[in-house]
Amino acid sequence: MKKYLLVLLVFLCLQTYAQQSINLSSPDGNIQLSAGLYAGGELSYSITYKNRPVILPSGLSMKFKEPDVELKQFTLQAIDSSSHDETWKTVWGEYSSIRDLHKELKLTLQDKNGSGILMNLIFRVFNEGVGFRYEFPDQEKLDHFVLADERSQFHLTGDHKTFWIPGDYDTNEFTYYTTKLSEVDASGGATAQEIHAKTFFDKNAMQTPLMMKTADGLYINIHEAALVNYPAMNVVVDKASFTLNAHLVPDAVGNKAYLQTPAKTPWRTIIVSDKATEIIAANRMILNLNEPSKVVDPSFIAPQKYVGIWWEMHVGKSSWDYAGGQVGSQQTSKVPHGATTENTKRYIDFAAKHGFKGVLVEGWNTGWEDWFGKWKENVFDFVTPYPDYDVAELSRYAKEKGVKIIMHHETSGSVTNYERWMDTAYRFMNNYGMNAVKSGYVGRIIPRGEHHDGQWMVRHYERAAKKTADYHINVNMHESVRLTGLHRTYPNWIASEAARGNEFNAWSSGNPPEHEVILPFTRLMGGPMDYTPGIFQIKLNVYDPNKKEQIHTTIAKQLALYITMYSPLQMAADLPENYEKHLNAFQFIKDVAVEWDDTNILSAEPGDYLTVARKEKGSPNWFIGAITDEQARTTTGSLSFLDAGKNYVATIYRDAADADWEKNPHAYTIEKFIVDNKTALKLKLAPGGGAAVSIMPVGTTNIKGIKKYK
Amino acid sequence: MKKYLLVLLVFLCLQTYAQQSINLSSPDGNIQLSAGLYAGGELSYSITYKNRPVILPSGLSMKFKEPDVELKQFTLQAIDSSSHDETWKTVWGEYSSIRDLHKELKLTLQDKNGSGILMNLIFRVFNEGVGFRYEFPDQEKLDHFVLADERSQFHLTGDHKTFWIPGDYDTNEFTYYTTKLSEVDASGGATAQEIHAKTFFDKNAMQTPLMMKTADGLYINIHEAALVNYPAMNVVVDKASFTLNAHLVPDAVGNKAYLQTPAKTPWRTIIVSDKATEIIAANRMILNLNEPSKVVDPSFIAPQKYVGIWWEMHVGKSSWDYAGGQVGSQQTSKVPHGATTENTKRYIDFAAKHGFKGVLVEGWNTGWEDWFGKWKENVFDFVTPYPDYDVAELSRYAKEKGVKIIMHHETSGSVTNYERWMDTAYRFMNNYGMNAVKSGYVGRIIPRGEHHDGQWMVRHYERAAKKTADYHINVNMHESVRLTGLHRTYPNWIASEAARGNEFNAWSSGNPPEHEVILPFTRLMGGPMDYTPGIFQIKLNVYDPNKKEQIHTTIAKQLALYITMYSPLQMAADLPENYEKHLNAFQFIKDVAVEWDDTNILSAEPGDYLTVARKEKGSPNWFIGAITDEQARTTTGSLSFLDAGKNYVATIYRDAADADWEKNPHAYTIEKFIVDNKTALKLKLAPGGGAAVSIMPVGTTNIKGIKKYK
Repeated sequence: MKKYLLVLLVFLCLQTYAQQSINLSSPDGNIQLSAGLYAGGELSYSITYKNRPVILPSGLSMKFKEPDVELKQFTLQAIDSSSHDETWKTVWGEYSSIRDLHKELKLTLQDKNGSGILMNLIFRVFNEGVGFRYEFPDQEKLDHFVLADERSQFHLTGDHKTFWIPGDYDTNEFTYYTTKLSEVDASGGATAQEIHAKTFFDKNAMQTPLMMKTADGLYINIHEAALVNYPAMNVVVDKASFTLNAHLVPDAVGNKAYLQTPAKTPWRTIIVSDKATEIIAANRMILNLNEPSKVVDPSFIAPQKYVGIWWEMHVGKSSWDYAGGQVGSQQTSKVPHGATTENTKRYIDFAAKHGFKGVLVEGWNTGWEDWFGKWKENVFDFVTPYPDYDVAELSRYAKEKGVKIIMHHETSGSVTNYERWMDTAYRFMNNYGMNAVKSGYVGRIIPRGEHHDGQWMVRHYERAAKKTADYHINVNMHESVRLTGLHRTYPNWIASEAARGNEFNAWSSGNPPEHEVILPFTRLMGGPMDYTPGIFQIKLNVYDPNKKEQIHTTIAKQLALYITMYSPLQMAADLPENYEKHLNAFQFIKDVAVEWDDTNILSAEPGDYLTVARKEKGSPNWFIGAITDEQARTTTGSLSFLDAGKNYVATIYRDAADADWEKNPHAYTIEKFIVDNKTALKLKLAPGGGAAVSIMPVGTTNIKGIKKYK
Repeated sequence: MKKYLLVLLVFLCLQTYAQQSINLSSPDGNIQLSAGLYAGGELSYSITYKNRPVILPSGLSMKFKEPDVELKQFTLQAIDSSSHDETWKTVWGEYSSIRDLHKELKLTLQDKNGSGILMNLIFRVFNEGVGFRYEFPDQEKLDHFVLADERSQFHLTGDHKTFWIPGDYDTNEFTYYTTKLSEVDASGGATAQEIHAKTFFDKNAMQTPLMMKTADGLYINIHEAALVNYPAMNVVVDKASFTLNAHLVPDAVGNKAYLQTPAKTPWRTIIVSDKATEIIAANRMILNLNEPSKVVDPSFIAPQKYVGIWWEMHVGKSSWDYAGGQVGSQQTSKVPHGATTENTKRYIDFAAKHGFKGVLVEGWNTGWEDWFGKWKENVFDFVTPYPDYDVAELSRYAKEKGVKIIMHHETSGSVTNYERWMDTAYRFMNNYGMNAVKSGYVGRIIPRGEHHDGQWMVRHYERAAKKTADYHINVNMHESVRLTGLHRTYPNWIASEAARGNEFNAWSSGNPPEHEVILPFTRLMGGPMDYTPGIFQIKLNVYDPNKKEQIHTTIAKQLALYITMYSPLQMAADLPENYEKHLNAFQFIKDVAVEWDDTNILSAEPGDYLTVARKEKGSPNWFIGAITDEQARTTTGSLSFLDAGKNYVATIYRDAADADWEKNPHAYTIEKFIVDNKTALKLKLAPGGGAAVSIMPVGTTNIKGIKKYK
């Protein structure tokens, strides 16, 4: 990264609240950061957007346990500023390249109260928002230290409308609440009961990414970037002042982090705009705050669509375990084991026939017969198949068919056990030609007392990302900490779940239609989610007449999710037999890309709707996805991004006129039109529905009988 | 093991305290166990020795956390009894074979209070004492469970004289206190401050093996056998009733153990005799309560004497770390790095010249420069040498000289890190021809919140024993949990420290002279200790004029320790240059065996004196060691164990007439005599002194000029 040291206008001015205050504006001038010290030496920062306050003066301080020091009053030793403008190429993603344009301000501070400890505060101001982090440089006065608390504050301007999930140390698999800040109650609703390993700690606590909307129409997103060697941050709202207070996930003995200088915290990020579309586009700011890729040769990194033996367990058609008892659904009778050699060959055949690269197989290894909820340390060994699963034969068969089996490592939360097996397990994958693993962390963590989102586990996830890279393996982590843009640094960490995925629709109260129009503003701000879309058999009573659940969607919405929920790893999650009944709709899943040159957010409102257009990487094809909540809507999208003077065929997969997520979810219509860059598409979305569009240049597809759009 | 089901006289009788009571006597009739249920269903047991009460009626119950059940009232479902007599061969030890003669009583019990849980209580009565354990058989009503408390009691008959160290979750490196039970105060004296990682929990708590003596001369030892998948037991004395209450070491979240049926606890052992010598000999009872060896091919197991680069760091002559700052002693100036290629070759040469098989090298690998007391997870990697240590060259050189380098794995207590490296580290040893490792667990444990003596670590030690066995490696663990006879099951777990070793003499208040006459009655009851005897340079001011410490011993006592402190692994701990000044005394260390066919405890009193004679394995040679506390003594030992009608040469290494552990520790005398099985040796021991004798048949040694003894 080239750094341009810039002659910056640093305003050292006296304000009513601060003794010393330094102002820095975003490159476009819309965002203004003010940081400084009060007369007593207390740190404070504030942010405005187009002269409207976003963050009122907010405190920044640190409390250590060892040494026993509170860093809350400082003397300002130095001010450094610089400006950065560079464009970097992604390994994969929503954009082929990303511009990192920001100004940086570094305050060198020293504890005023005797310890002599040096701390730096770094701010970066982008057009999209602000990031800040604490640094503890190499110094005589501080080497090893134990963090008791990070006391970062985000003092908001009012009782904003907020899209939140409860603060928790172990899970993020909640449905979202949409309330005012004053109405937050994280003490756990009905859906919290559906999650096994959870650790509630404060009824005013919420997780990030936290999406808010002010009464006067500003959109604000608070999260963190580059969560490395540090616990995840929750925020606890003080309802009297509307201040969010950082709350770090503790370890087994109540400490927050064990650090050694030089050390730095993750970036705390505040993204702000008066347009909801710009919030989603600003997930690039999170990436810009992460380190460049450490994977020297990324040639093994394999974005892909995949199918797998997985949904059939969730709907109760087959089981994870050999004995036939472990399924996602409540059921009493035994079902066949899913991961048999024969069934896997059926999926390999289906994948090969329809052009999928990967076949995930869950429940192939011993351990599933006795694991769930037991907090048992030695469950899985990751190399011993059930007797009806022939690893060598399937490896041979998959290779013959040009498909790769995706390994599955459910750790049952017993991470000490997994870490003992990792090398052996990855060598096993190498030996059998597998280059991707889905890992899972279901259940309470072992080491006991540690949490999914604490420093120890954050280090584990990074270790897993590094070690899989060493073995040229792509990794997709489920039940991990939510993402913070680290996939820039470790692009083989190709996705995570780390939120409530489509699976909950199979056996719980499910995900309400608004869920997928909130996730892009929250969980996906930090990185791709393996949401596992593509369910065509929406009513689940076909598997069992007593099964009441149905997916809260239409088929067309399931297609749209491949665009609106960006991931380089996308599952076609339903069963082959269900796709075979709807091959015309399935064509969209076959066509849709997973890597993109460019992305346009056409329309967006958190919790309501989202329309996204993306250009396939290295191709002239575009794809559009539009989704809505439980409200029917018509969304209009200009195709002005198409090449001028060129005709394209648009294939529109939309809800049928009478489609409805509750009453008529399977009804869809497919139409083809000729379009160009002057076309404005009008997409009608049913309640809980969506639309998906593929746009390919004329010449690459048959246009006989296709009419011009509108 | 052959089992003889015996028609046992089981007395079902009514007593005043119990509804049902079953009596069982030891094979020799001296010990009587009574076990039974009170009218309410509460379990109780009591023990007498030669009709004198040893354990008064004492309770036995269990409390679970998950399920939330207290097992304290039972119905008796069945009584089974059997008798056992078998003799098994040791892989190594104090005896070539050991007789396991005992009667067993099994009570099948069911919870009376609704849970329906089944529990068995197994008693084994030996001539030496009693062992009992709880079993939770495979059953419908109990699968996984979490133990909150084991409430085993040992109700003693009075205010016994007790040899104890404070109860602790993390360390056993205390000096011993000798007080009445009523005077126990475990809140930590001066020596406790010398230990870094310690976790005090109750001022009435003590560790086992706990040695006691009653006012009327009974010796009682309480410990446990076969500590597997369970936390270690401390005992807390109720001074009102002189009842010892079991207190298990908790885990990071306060639970005691995570178990799954079928499960069993370790054996709780009560050894009793009216002769102190018989207590020490009864360490065989602990072995008999352990499982036979699981090491299928023990040919790699290598009892041995070794030297090493180790004491020089303790006395401050060289350092563990490359930069020269890490030494045992307090000192300000830098010293040279100890583990250099050149220095190691010097030790290899010395070992080869004098017939030692092993050379331990500590401080050879990176990490020492920044580890102590930091609770840092990633310190050592166990495969990266400092730049001045050439592993390949030293491996070649050692092989050429017929010596093996002993690997050193200091884990710094970061066991998660060690477990990640174990396979790699053991492969590294295999590649470089090393077959023994000394491991260390200095510092607070990671996973944080776990303890050295908790279930998680107990499982780790067993895992380490198994994994080293898989790699054909002998392991010697320092700062581990104290032993419970598991070296029968894993004879490659060749020794442990797990008590206050000789090293404390180098830089702390040291070990008082009585320390070595207490350890055989306490720590060594559970298994061999790598005490590292053989210090000849007793005053340490030769290394630094300001160094005040001296070892609390005479040279002759250091020699005697090779017999009195049994271990199949014995270090000659001093520096080569110190041995070269006393080659005549060093001859004893060269001659003494580490494996034995037979052992006779000639005289013993805990805290006062000990004389032991041992017959070398597969040889007619005998060796005697006699030690005393700070009192001078004369000990008389009959040599009646020698073959009748045969003459032997006895070489006596004894304290000089004016020797004294404080004032004149280096003075010794060596004499040779002809002895036979009618000889009664009189050995004069100086204050804090000892005597060592080697006895070899005439014919194997030169007898010219040697006179008949007395």
